Amino acid sequence: MELNLKDIKAIAMDVDGVLTNGTIIHLENGDQLRAFDAKDTFSVRVAGLKGLVVGIMSGGKCPSLYQRCLNLGIKPENIHLGCRGKLEVFHQFCKDNGLKPSEVLYMGDDIPDTQVLRAAGIGVVPNDAADEAKAAADMVSDYPGGHWCVRKTIEMVMKAQSLWEFDENRFDLIF
Amino acid sequence: MELNLKDIKAIAMDVDGVLTNGTIIHLENGDQLRAFDAKDTFSVRVAGLKGLVVGIMSGGKCPSLYQRCLNLGIKPENIHLGCRGKLEVFHQFCKDNGLKPSEVLYMGDDIPDTQVLRAAGIGVVPNDAADEAKAAADMVSDYPGGHWCVRKTIEMVMKAQSLWEFDENRFDLIF
Amino acid sequence: MELNLKDIKAIAMDVDGVLTNGTIIHLENGDQLRAFDAKDTFSVRVAGLKGLVVGIMSGGKCPSLYQRCLNLGIKPENIHLGCRGKLEVFHQFCKDNGLKPSEVLYMGDDIPDTQVLRAAGIGVVPNDAADEAKAAADMVSDYPGGHWCVRKTIEMVMKAQSLWEFDENRFDLIF
Amino acid sequence: MELNLKDIKAIAMDVDGVLTNGTIIHLENGDQLRAFDAKDTFSVRVAGLKGLVVGIMSGGKCPSLYQRCLNLGIKPENIHLGCRGKLEVFHQFCKDNGLKPSEVLYMGDDIPDTQVLRAAGIGVVPNDAADEAKAAADMVSDYPGGHWCVRKTIEMVMKAQSLWEFDENRFDLIF
Repeated sequence: MELNLKDIKAIAMDVDGVLTNGTIIHLENGDQLRAFDAKDTFSVRVAGLKGLVVGIMSGGKCPSLYQRCLNLGIKPENIHLGCRGKLEVFHQFCKDNGLKPSEVLYMGDDIPDTQVLRAAGIGVVPNDAADEAKAAADMVSDYPGGHWCVRKTIEMVMKAQSLWEFDENRFDLIF
Repeated sequence: MELNLKDIKAIAMDVDGVLTNGTIIHLENGDQLRAFDAKDTFSVRVAGLKGLVVGIMSGGKCPSLYQRCLNLGIKPENIHLGCRGKLEVFHQFCKDNGLKPSEVLYMGDDIPDTQVLRAAGIGVVPNDAADEAKAAADMVSDYPGGHWCVRKTIEMVMKAQSLWEFDENRFDLIF
Repeated sequence: MELNLKDIKAIAMDVDGVLTNGTIIHLENGDQLRAFDAKDTFSVRVAGLKGLVVGIMSGGKCPSLYQRCLNLGIKPENIHLGCRGKLEVFHQFCKDNGLKPSEVLYMGDDIPDTQVLRAAGIGVVPNDAADEAKAAADMVSDYPGGHWCVRKTIEMVMKAQSLWEFDENRFDLIF
Repeated sequence: MELNLKDIKAIAMDVDGVLTNGTIIHLENGDQLRAFDAKDTFSVRVAGLKGLVVGIMSGGKCPSLYQRCLNLGIKPENIHLGCRGKLEVFHQFCKDNGLKPSEVLYMGDDIPDTQVLRAAGIGVVPNDAADEAKAAADMVSDYPGGHWCVRKTIEMVMKAQSLWEFDENRFDLIF
């Protein structure tokens, strides 16, 4: 199957196992610690600055995760935490941003992501995703969650649209 | 040896080296930080929701670990922390839940787990378990502690009982 | 290309992906947790004690990172956090320390580092750097960020200058 | 060289890169987070309970590390943190415990450990130790720091002395 990268206007993604390696440290006070890779998050920030819509759809929910998403430049209305039933959330995301599902690339890694992986224009899974998620995806990344799956997928889309280009004299805009 | 997966009614497990990769970060205030994998914990939650009894038997003990177990849907009476002598705890767990030892699958990884690995209907160890635990087990997982040993073992049991099935329209129930 | 190691008077470096493996844990209060390798940081401390100028140029910024740099013996004026446009910062670093760019070895790993990797006398990237950074570098380390890239690069420079030598009776000076 | 395992009466060790994988997370308040492996720390606790003297000699120093050592059953007078010049500390440790240096096995991984690795009866390094430490050691472990170097070294000593034996009915004594 050839991926229709040029039509993609939005990047939506799960967090645990996609933007992280899936491990979470739970604190006594209820907060959750997640480790994010600087190269992955660089690409998320760049995608937003270059005009792609970026969305988060995670079953996880805690204050530090919400704050982290904001810091990546994601708009509050596109940060969906504590999701139960992601397909509904996905359609809300499309509606909120005036997007057709075919214009969204979605990255997920486990059973709760299967419906959205199929509904999205392009469904991508890390190479360490659950079998059920792999079966629902259009593409298996060469990279695992939390380490280059997000980076290389975003690069792929942005390169197809000639957006992965940097004015070295204006790095202040992107990092 | 053929494993009698259909008779299993309960999944009991150690924490460090089984539901985690064995590393613990100790804080000055006595709390302990452990990293849990989202795919492993997904399967623990699913097991409980589908009717399997889930139990924890760990030598470790701290408030954040207790809270974590509760969040996984494990009943307070089945969360055994600070265990000294796990065989006694195992028999108490069986009694509390009206189970025969042969109906319990137990996952452990080190010397304090050897008795329970032998006493349980099925004893499973991660592929990075201590030699003594491997010798006491019925099965060595293809996966290490903290990364798919728990997930794949629970999948194995639930698939044998036709329980690893998901109604995609009711994901709200499982995640 | 032969590297002119003997002329190097300063070691400057990015943090995320160079002095760490790139992962950052963001806390609710805005602080950021980074894991540093003891062998890497040992070499940074030694470099400073033996007379090399050491500088930090990172897009990241938080109190614990600043404190960490101070603990490594780096002078406050050479700790540049929250960088936007690293080339300007690099030239300021050279000016502040009376150095020519050719006398500085710089280690970076991603797109915001490309200009400085080219401007510095020697540009080094970890073996898991982004392609764009690798293309801008004079040398790709045999080691990844956060695990021996910094150590082995500093060793290389100091050995070329006969500085990687230790008086075992004066370890109190270096650790 | 044949190692004289039967004469060993004490196990002394560095922390970073030996009892951990070398990574440290520094907090804003000055505390340091280190991840310890449960299988490694199990063996440290067992060694102490079976009558071996256990000592810690680390350049690192923080409240949570001190507390961690106490929890492993190490006597306060044998916990040496913030070491500058470990050879002197090593001789003090021997004197405090009425030991000859030849009766101590020491584990270290970097340049500040070289003198003690040579002075101790048996010097052991993890397989990811610095070259200088490897050169000073009697034995290179098959395992890295923070993951089984300590466990397997302690097992080796205790098996040679028929001490690595467990009464399964008295696990309450060891864990």
